[in-house]
Amino acid sequence: MKLDYKRLTGQDYKAGCPAADGEMVVDTGAALEDGDDQVDPWNVSSSSAKGVDYNKLIVRFGSSKIDQELVDRIARVTGKTPHRFLRRGIFFSHRDMHQILDAYEKQKSFYLYTGRGPSSEAMHVGHLIPFIFTKWLQDVFDVPLVIQMTDDEKYLWKDLSLDDLADPKLLTTSPAFYRNVVKVQKHVTFNQVKGIFGFTDSDCIGKVSFPAVQAAPSFSSSFPQIFGERTDVQCLIPCAIDQDPYFRMTRDVAPRIGYPKPALLHSTFFPALQGAQTKMSASDANSSIFLTDSAKQIKNKINKHAFSGGKDTVEEHRKCGGNPDVDVSFMYLSFFLEDDEQLEKIRQVRHGPRSSRDPAEDR
Amino acid sequence: MKLDYKRLTGQDYKAGCPAADGEMVVDTGAALEDGDDQVDPWNVSSSSAKGVDYNKLIVRFGSSKIDQELVDRIARVTGKTPHRFLRRGIFFSHRDMHQILDAYEKQKSFYLYTGRGPSSEAMHVGHLIPFIFTKWLQDVFDVPLVIQMTDDEKYLWKDLSLDDLADPKLLTTSPAFYRNVVKVQKHVTFNQVKGIFGFTDSDCIGKVSFPAVQAAPSFSSSFPQIFGERTDVQCLIPCAIDQDPYFRMTRDVAPRIGYPKPALLHSTFFPALQGAQTKMSASDANSSIFLTDSAKQIKNKINKHAFSGGKDTVEEHRKCGGNPDVDVSFMYLSFFLEDDEQLEKIRQVRHGPRSSRDPAEDR
Repeated sequence: MKLDYKRLTGQDYKAGCPAADGEMVVDTGAALEDGDDQVDPWNVSSSSAKGVDYNKLIVRFGSSKIDQELVDRIARVTGKTPHRFLRRGIFFSHRDMHQILDAYEKQKSFYLYTGRGPSSEAMHVGHLIPFIFTKWLQDVFDVPLVIQMTDDEKYLWKDLSLDDLADPKLLTTSPAFYRNVVKVQKHVTFNQVKGIFGFTDSDCIGKVSFPAVQAAPSFSSSFPQIFGERTDVQCLIPCAIDQDPYFRMTRDVAPRIGYPKPALLHSTFFPALQGAQTKMSASDANSSIFLTDSAKQIKNKINKHAFSGGKDTVEEHRKCGGNPDVDVSFMYLSFFLEDDEQLEKIRQVRHGPRSSRDPAEDR
Repeated sequence: MKLDYKRLTGQDYKAGCPAADGEMVVDTGAALEDGDDQVDPWNVSSSSAKGVDYNKLIVRFGSSKIDQELVDRIARVTGKTPHRFLRRGIFFSHRDMHQILDAYEKQKSFYLYTGRGPSSEAMHVGHLIPFIFTKWLQDVFDVPLVIQMTDDEKYLWKDLSLDDLADPKLLTTSPAFYRNVVKVQKHVTFNQVKGIFGFTDSDCIGKVSFPAVQAAPSFSSSFPQIFGERTDVQCLIPCAIDQDPYFRMTRDVAPRIGYPKPALLHSTFFPALQGAQTKMSASDANSSIFLTDSAKQIKNKINKHAFSGGKDTVEEHRKCGGNPDVDVSFMYLSFFLEDDEQLEKIRQVRHGPRSSRDPAEDR
């Protein structure tokens, strides 16, 4: 079967102008080693306006690149045009996705697991990325999905009381789920979570043990209401790559407690309005476009805050145009504009002064 | 109101013969500091055949002695003869018991919490001590009782799989309970559990976070099915004193999460058949009398294993008699024989050779 799609990756977007590396430095309050990007479940930052170096991250995390062959295989197995997140390298890294497809081709199903740390505030558009992709996977593979709401993580890491949570009653576990939490907790030492997550002796024991709570949905036996007695249904986890440490730990534990390792599909980060040095964060309202923002509010935020990578002088800007590698508005389009041709056209346009090229203007 | 009872404490049992201190040394595999007894939730051992020095323990743990005044007050408030465990100093230490009584006298109720780490084997007679006393407290104060079955602790500390537990399905939590577990976990650091329980970096995160699971039943909000919306019902915990570290931690956390501190009543340990250097332990069948043992089995165990403190020669033994301070059979009687006069008579008898004085013979 031949499907008509072209895969565009970050590499394809190399502009002819000098790289924007080092243009802005975000003070993360933490020393970055050897110019490495900082990527863990609680901090994402890069010194590059292009954002995190994802190829380096694949090497550092020991995952595998989602290459053309894998995207083609997903197209072949599902008979569907790969999602734009696959065509454009937004989901760029994986663990054991070929194994999932091998089994799927032999009629052996799997299930999907993704999650969200809810807060009383609205979700922002960056939060949509794993959900949009998971929905697509669910549709094309026709498999069950579990979504974990990690109120516990929010409560443990933030300066919140339980009553500050959107719904404190959601903070609960089922018996089968709790058994797997304790099972994981028995097989991971403090030393290990210290190594993986950087916990210190001053961290609360809630943080120290929380990784087991995020691990548990990776095992089908946590959900007897879906899988009955089956403990061997493999799990596929679409998530942003900052969540990978949780699942490196989970994959390490899985065989020791008699369960299959979860497979993963990793996405890049959704950039903050101020630029790809950090991801969009609900705790910084100016960095974020919320699902509750009106069209007018969104337009204002884009005009006021969206980093464009515009040049220092009008002459220079006219000569080089905008730099789609660092232009946040263009990056957002690459996440949300389905039409590959139109996206490519916008990329090729030599961007004029901000007001005339702002894609938000077109809405 | 005058109640007819006499309180017998360890002090009253001082025999006229040289103390048996240092006669036997139990190798616990752990260095004891300055001849201190080792007392924590997983290890109890003393170098003295009389067992742990409980007066020293009160000082070390910072608890209060259950003195004559407190026993008299319990008698006065309840209008009941104090339980033999109170009359005989078997429950010997407390925290905030006067506060419980102050409130009780003002018609402010409390609730009881005790627990057990169940295993697939039978309970031994030592396990009965907190239950017997808790039942008495429940009867005389007419208050609710919760019993926690800490399958989790057994699973985490022992070389067991979940399937080895008596009923793995018991390993569960309710939503309100889990919320309090997480609340406690947020307010205790790894440093703190390291200090209190001696955990190391090599301990699994299950052990590290378990103390919060044992703490949670100390708060009435863990049981909305009993207490509704009330978060202020104080808890009274009857337990052996080796469990105190859990509740020192709990009492430290309580005011920081807006709950009253639990009060405690601490018992001495139920001695192993081999002597009071260690407590009776289900994992050493020869040290224990199980509730499933027949009368004949019990008799055989007592005759074969029960340490009597008998003297080296028949002459010496005739002169000094047995030493009720170290005689395990006599200690067991002090736990289970209700009649104070009869117990005192047995104590005063100059014990002859083993066979003729073994109280088990009288059954």
